[in-house]
Amino acid sequence: METKITKLFNIQYPIISGGMVWCSGWELASAVSNAGGLGLIGAGSMHPEVLEEHIRQCKKNTHKPFGINIPLGYPQLDKVWEIIKREKISIIFTSAGNPMLYTEQLKKEGIKVVHVISNLKQALKAQDAGVDAVVAEGFEAGGHNGKEGTTTMVLLEILHNRLSIPVIAAGGIVSGRGISAALTLGAEGVQIGTLFAASKESSAHERYKQAVINVTDGGTAMCLTKTANIRMIKNTICERLLEAERNGVSQEVLNKLAGNKRAKAGIFEGDIEEGFLEVGECAACISKIESVQEIITRLISEIPSLN
Amino acid sequence: METKITKLFNIQYPIISGGMVWCSGWELASAVSNAGGLGLIGAGSMHPEVLEEHIRQCKKNTHKPFGINIPLGYPQLDKVWEIIKREKISIIFTSAGNPMLYTEQLKKEGIKVVHVISNLKQALKAQDAGVDAVVAEGFEAGGHNGKEGTTTMVLLEILHNRLSIPVIAAGGIVSGRGISAALTLGAEGVQIGTLFAASKESSAHERYKQAVINVTDGGTAMCLTKTANIRMIKNTICERLLEAERNGVSQEVLNKLAGNKRAKAGIFEGDIEEGFLEVGECAACISKIESVQEIITRLISEIPSLN
Repeated sequence: METKITKLFNIQYPIISGGMVWCSGWELASAVSNAGGLGLIGAGSMHPEVLEEHIRQCKKNTHKPFGINIPLGYPQLDKVWEIIKREKISIIFTSAGNPMLYTEQLKKEGIKVVHVISNLKQALKAQDAGVDAVVAEGFEAGGHNGKEGTTTMVLLEILHNRLSIPVIAAGGIVSGRGISAALTLGAEGVQIGTLFAASKESSAHERYKQAVINVTDGGTAMCLTKTANIRMIKNTICERLLEAERNGVSQEVLNKLAGNKRAKAGIFEGDIEEGFLEVGECAACISKIESVQEIITRLISEIPSLN
Repeated sequence: METKITKLFNIQYPIISGGMVWCSGWELASAVSNAGGLGLIGAGSMHPEVLEEHIRQCKKNTHKPFGINIPLGYPQLDKVWEIIKREKISIIFTSAGNPMLYTEQLKKEGIKVVHVISNLKQALKAQDAGVDAVVAEGFEAGGHNGKEGTTTMVLLEILHNRLSIPVIAAGGIVSGRGISAALTLGAEGVQIGTLFAASKESSAHERYKQAVINVTDGGTAMCLTKTANIRMIKNTICERLLEAERNGVSQEVLNKLAGNKRAKAGIFEGDIEEGFLEVGECAACISKIESVQEIITRLISEIPSLN
């Protein structure tokens, strides 16, 4: 299964696991890479020394390529760049920030750089900044999300023939059929989040994984739409925020209601009512907790052109 | 190109034009049917005598199958059923109402019935009611929209292997790649709205069609989310409604702001600032006004498996 993305990263399948906060540690990243995809460590929820430890463990557990997802709003970015250099990391996915700031410097180190985008303008800017590929993330994706509300299918149509670099589709992909559809729409690979967040190797709490399994049709919503814009399961805190937004309360009141460390509480500590349970819409399609190997074997078996 | 949908309607391509208010008259419907798809007349914006005239004109202009879309909230439904019977209409798409109420009666007349759904529960209910197929319409679609916010891609994944009747995908489909992706995800056909709303044969005003061409990335929004939930172009009236909703104004005030006949004003009369310009997200991918024949020829040429 050769695409521009498998060639770019020297991987077997064009399947990347998202660098998700509190889910994407070395266990998930190395398992995905060992199964023929590209595993990402999610730096967003790690202090620099924790990230360093995860990188070292990941290297011990796979000899295949893996990468790091770094949100550009990370508070100690300089320390992260030092670790990246010291550990000779060769693949970086950046998100939630300006790709002009660091891409050139990373490329000079020989690092392959991918930036996450949600509209054409951001995609063109990332291309201008010199990235090797973009992740095009649609409205149905979990966690932090673009403000335009453009779905994965429409975003791929908008980007079609507009970029010279390859596109990785993200948001709503949960089967081999979804992978095949994304490739048909012009993507050269996919980034899968929720399905891996609920896998055996994810660092998330068991109660979070069970909550993913329990999501049904329409069971997620976009919260804090004026600021972070986060898709999560409609639990108690989510409903409270939605109600406050509908009532037009001030941003100050909303921020207070949202509080801090809700993602850690929900995803890592398993507080399924008062924590943020960040998931994509396709949580409604996930019915069991599988190992990464089981997931990737199934995804590949579901790709029509390979059968 | 044979699918369960081409066989159900005895058509050449599994492409259906949406029965869109103020767009889908006999000119559009007959042109789509003549080009090998299934044209629908949109009864929602027609008085009974106008609908009857459009049916007669459609019959004069095509000998191929065509259908009527009837929103079940239509105020003079009894008159419509009389017309349907008198004119021996053989294909009906129902939307926005309970499929249990009329499906059995229509089926007894030998009519093929399709119902529009936006979630699994509605789909199962429509199947129980005895419909021949469902239109699964995602969040990216234009006009009245489901409340769950489920995108076309995810809705198709949710419905996969859950129904014994065929699924027609709607929302975000604007190219042959999109048709191919929808079929890969398990649909047996597609319903296309915005692309046909902006075609030469659409009854919409030229200023509406030009406004569709001018839409860019993120240029549409869902308005009146507590009631009608309508996707439209972000023009003056749309922004005014969005602002009012963000400020949490009462439903009474919102209804007053929304007023009446805004869809007619926008789509049919070309009031592009104070009328509702109902379109899907994929308006951002439409760059010219084409004839129906040009559109269908292009769509077919873009389907990878046929080339």
